This record gives sequence, C-alpha cells and structure tokens, in this order.
Amino acid sequence: MTDHAGVPMTLAALRALARAKLRAVGLAEDHAEAVAETMVAGERDGCASHGIYRLLVAAASVRAGVVVPDAVPVVSRPGKALVRVDGGGGFAQLAFARGLPVLVAAAREHGIAALALNHVVHFAALWPEVEALAREGLVALACTPSHAWVAPAGGTQPVFGTNPIAFGWPRPAGDPFVFDFATSAVARGEIELHRRAGLPVPEEWGYDAEGAPTTDAKAVLDGAMRTFGGHKGSALAAMVELLAGPLIGDLTSRESLALDDGRGGSPVGGELIVAIDPAGFLGEATTAHLARAEAMFAAIEAQGARLPSARRYAARAHSLAEGVVVPAALHAEIMAIGAAA
Amino acid sequence: MTDHAGVPMTLAALRALARAKLRAVGLAEDHAEAVAETMVAGERDGCASHGIYRLLVAAASVRAGVVVPDAVPVVSRPGKALVRVDGGGGFAQLAFARGLPVLVAAAREHGIAALALNHVVHFAALWPEVEALAREGLVALACTPSHAWVAPAGGTQPVFGTNPIAFGWPRPAGDPFVFDFATSAVARGEIELHRRAGLPVPEEWGYDAEGAPTTDAKAVLDGAMRTFGGHKGSALAAMVELLAGPLIGDLTSRESLALDDGRGGSPVGGELIVAIDPAGFLGEATTAHLARAEAMFAAIEAQGARLPSARRYAARAHSLAEGVVVPAALHAEIMAIGAAA
Repeated sequence: MTDHAGVPMTLAALRALARAKLRAVGLAEDHAEAVAETMVAGERDGCASHGIYRLLVAAASVRAGVVVPDAVPVVSRPGKALVRVDGGGGFAQLAFARGLPVLVAAAREHGIAALALNHVVHFAALWPEVEALAREGLVALACTPSHAWVAPAGGTQPVFGTNPIAFGWPRPAGDPFVFDFATSAVARGEIELHRRAGLPVPEEWGYDAEGAPTTDAKAVLDGAMRTFGGHKGSALAAMVELLAGPLIGDLTSRESLALDDGRGGSPVGGELIVAIDPAGFLGEATTAHLARAEAMFAAIEAQGARLPSARRYAARAHSLAEGVVVPAALHAEIMAIGAAA
Repeated sequence: MTDHAGVPMTLAALRALARAKLRAVGLAEDHAEAVAETMVAGERDGCASHGIYRLLVAAASVRAGVVVPDAVPVVSRPGKALVRVDGGGGFAQLAFARGLPVLVAAAREHGIAALALNHVVHFAALWPEVEALAREGLVALACTPSHAWVAPAGGTQPVFGTNPIAFGWPRPAGDPFVFDFATSAVARGEIELHRRAGLPVPEEWGYDAEGAPTTDAKAVLDGAMRTFGGHKGSALAAMVELLAGPLIGDLTSRESLALDDGRGGSPVGGELIVAIDPAGFLGEATTAHLARAEAMFAAIEAQGARLPSARRYAARAHSLAEGVVVPAALHAEIMAIGAAA
C-alpha cells in the first residue's frame, strides 16, 4: 500500500476529510470525530490496513445498518474498580473515549481497574487505546473477540475470532512500549489480499470448509483460519473470548457472526481493558523500578532486535513531519463516499 | 517418565513422603506442607516434570542457600484493590497460600484485584494457583519471569525467562478451564531431556552462545532458547517480565540469573496474579453468561479438539482412584534425600 502515485496530505487535512466523509454517511458529530482520530492514527503510523482505508469499512457498516450512527454511550460503575460503557450499538471509539477518564481515575484510586465496553462495533486496532492509557502513566491490557473465523488447535471448524491482545507500558522518556497482535496465524486482511492477488497462502494459515488443509485463500476465508503458535495461541484466543465475551455479558465471536447474519458487517460485541497504576505497588519507588524496565528494553535493542512498536513510531515521526500519501485509487474511492449515496 | 518398574503410591502416602523429605532438608513445617501440596498436584495430574521429581530441585535449592527455608510471608495492602505478600526469600507456595484469601476477598469487593508475590523462589507450575482461584468462582491470570534463558524475536541473546502465563475460568459444573504455558518455544526441561538422551533438538528451539542456529541441546542450554510463536510470543514474554518484575518492584529474569551467580538455583523474584469476579460485571445474570461460555467450550469439544486442561483432569481422576506410580530410579533418589545430607 505504498503507492507513490498517490495524494499527499497533511494529517490535519486527512482528519478533516475523514470527519467529513463519516458525517456524510450519517455518523453523528462526536462519533465521526472519535472514529476519524483512530483512522488518522493508523495511517500516520504506517498501518495501511487500519488506516484511512477503514473509512470504506466503516461506511459499509453504517450503510448495512450494522452500527447505530448516533448511539449515546452510557457510563456506569458496576463495581468499585469496574467501569462499564454501554455503547448502544455505536462504534467502539466514542465508547472508549467516554470510558477512558473514568478508567484512569478508577485505576489510580484502586491500583487496578477494568473497563468493559459493551454493545459496540469494532473495526479498528486496539493499540491506540492501550497507548492512550500508557500515556496516562498506566499499564494496560486490552482484548476483544471478533467474528468466528478461527479454528481451535486440534479442530478445523471456526469458533474464535481473530481475537487481538494489546498491551501498553509507560516509559518515562519517550513513547510507550505497545504491542497489539491477532491470536490468529495472520490477519484476515492478509488472506483477503492474497485472494485478490490470486496468490496461494501457506498451508499453516487455515483449512477449507471441509476441514482439509489448503493453500487456496478463498477456501480459507470460507473455511477456518488457524491460531498462531499452535495450542498456546489457541488457549489465548479462548481466553479473549471469555474475558471480553461472557465475563462482561457480551457476545462471543460465534454469536457475533450469527448476529451479522451474512451482512458482512464489522464484529459487534464487547471489549475488556484492564489498567494498572504502577504507583499502586511501587509508591515512591516507581521511577526507580520503571528504570529497571528500561534496562530490559536496552538489552533487547542492544542485540539489534526491535521493540514491537518501533516501526510504528518511526512511521509516525515521518508522518508528523511530512504528512502521508494516500494511494490514488483509495483516495478516489474515499472521495466517492457520500457522493455515491 | 512412565516407568512401569516403579513404586505404586497413594496420593496420601506421596504427600507424607514429600512433607517428610522437605522437613528433612530443613524446610519449616508450613512451607513443607504448601510445597508438598504442589508437587503432589503435579504428580497426580500426570505432569511428571512438575511432580514429585521437583523434590530433588527444591532440596537442591535449599542446600544451595537459594531459598530461605523458614521465611515468614508478610501480607500487606498497598492499594485498595492490591495485595502484596513479601515471601521473604521462601518458596512461592506458602506466600500464595497466605495471599489467596485476601485476594479472593479483594476481588469480590472491588470486582477486580491484583496480588503480587515478592521475594519468592519459583520451581512450580502456575496452574494450581489459577485453578484455586477459579474454584473460588473467580477468573484468574498469573505470570512470572524466571532466569534469562530466552532470546527476544529478532535477537539471539537471552533476555527473557521461560515466562509462563496461566489462566483460570470457573465452570458451573465440573473442573475449571485452565491453561498454563511457557512463552518459550518449549520447556527448558524438554531441552535438558534431549541433552541427557544425546538427541538433537529442532533448530527452531534455540541458538548457541554465538547466536548461530543449532540442533545441539547443550549448545542451546548454554546459548539462548527461542520464544514460541515468533514476535507474538516474544511480545508476551516481554509483558510477563514487566508485569511480574518492575511493575511489582521485583526482579527481571536477567536480574534473577545474575543474583543466582552460577549456583544453579531456581529463579527468585516475583509473580503477579490478577483475579476478576464475574459477578462484578454480571450481577444476577452471572449464571446465564457463564452458560454462554459453556456453549463455546462445547463448540470446541464437538469437533474433537481438546480443552487445554482436559488431559490433566483425566490423569487426576485416574490418580485419585488408583494412586500414582513413582519411577523406581526417582523413588530411590527421593529416598536418599536427607539421608545423604
């Protein structure tokens, strides 16, 4: 997605375009603002698949009636260290934005706290959320189910979603340590790209609908993806289903896919975010102990290995200075949103 | 380790033997009781490498002065939803036992709570701890660093420990859903077994001390193991270091290995355990939502895939009815403990 025959844009211009197009498809002002911010962050950080391309995905979800465009998130406190935001069927971004300050305050007061987002539509990566918490000085862990596309280890039929896990850790000087990965062997979009390009996929990516190994991308999309890391990745995928599904009273990936009923919309359901305040266990020694974490990061980088978020931060620095280039074909598709409606 | 030329024992006899031998090497009564329980649980569940064999490991740690045999765990409450047990350099089991009821109460009161074990010696699996919490009706997540034996993805020099992650989920009828796995490609003991047997190891298990791929088991033990699942497993290993190291004011795996200073003792450091009360988010709907989790488990098992804990529970049922058989050579080594001292 590094098409040089593209349209150069500043991040401010990209933000304005994203907001305008989200408004044009009928998204309420506050939702358009929150959703645009996530897409701009993805594009800025070089994550093309979670960047401004997602405008097309979000617009489709609105048109298909999968998302409630003017949902009003409702914040509640079901427990002393628990926060819930009922998203009312809207996109997750605004629900998270409403819950963020409440979660931060709860984590600082209790040392640890959890935020459940319920009844939200997911199309975005989780790293912007754990990064936001880490920038508040908190350690954060987030996960969400999706649609049932992934088979458990030892099976061949879909049960799990791509079920990402994201983690953020505050660093005293500089950007937080952040990772965010799917518990499936690859992102579903990666298989879709192979299908479009007519390329075979590695056999360890998935099964066809009959449960046989296959290198046919479409057969995997119609069959089942596999988890990363064998039975360990499968165990983590199950954990994500449980934590961000039944534990918070929301849908599993199988339930989300059943609810979609073939509309092809983004997953609907819940998300769990746990935040821990380092000052809780460490008190006045917080600075000293965070420095010991820095020594571990240094030991990783000293041998030429890269921290998970390094590539994104490098792309970010470039985008902040130079802006981004939106591929010409994508730009044309985006400009047609709303106009075509 | 399924030596049929072994010594049949009831679990009660095994427990009595373990306690007696731990007392004989100088472990205080309460520690001996807690440590024996863990070893019996491992043997009972068919986990030979974490079973009664660990008597030899624990005895060696006591003899090497790595563990404080009569440490008195001290429980404190550094935050409203935080519990800390300073293990005083003793084995982790007693510290966990002291912290367990306090963590359970804190999770029920706040919806979520965290327990840090500090200054403890680790030689055991984490699943008995998350299982104990799940049997209290709580969801539990536990992790601990170890010694720096594992290279980060993209590198070849050890930074991480084998850094296990364990998870427990309460099931209304029957045994909890539990998993517990190392974030290294394999258990370190597996490589040790290959070394003893003179067998090569797969190239994806590790590197030699110069950072070159190798199939020589001893070279990997002297070099660096690899994480499971590539960069994803590596990210999780880093997360475990941070959560159960600096976040709770305890050692990273590099610091633990440096402290050991060649004595070959078990890892010393901390452990983090997070517990969540399903009733916090779910209230009176808890039963209904736990039933939805059961539907997911059923979808896994209906296709012939096994839940992570299924094999252990099957072994447990057998052991409870029939007892266990301790391999003759191991039994002889155990009987020599204390007598040889």
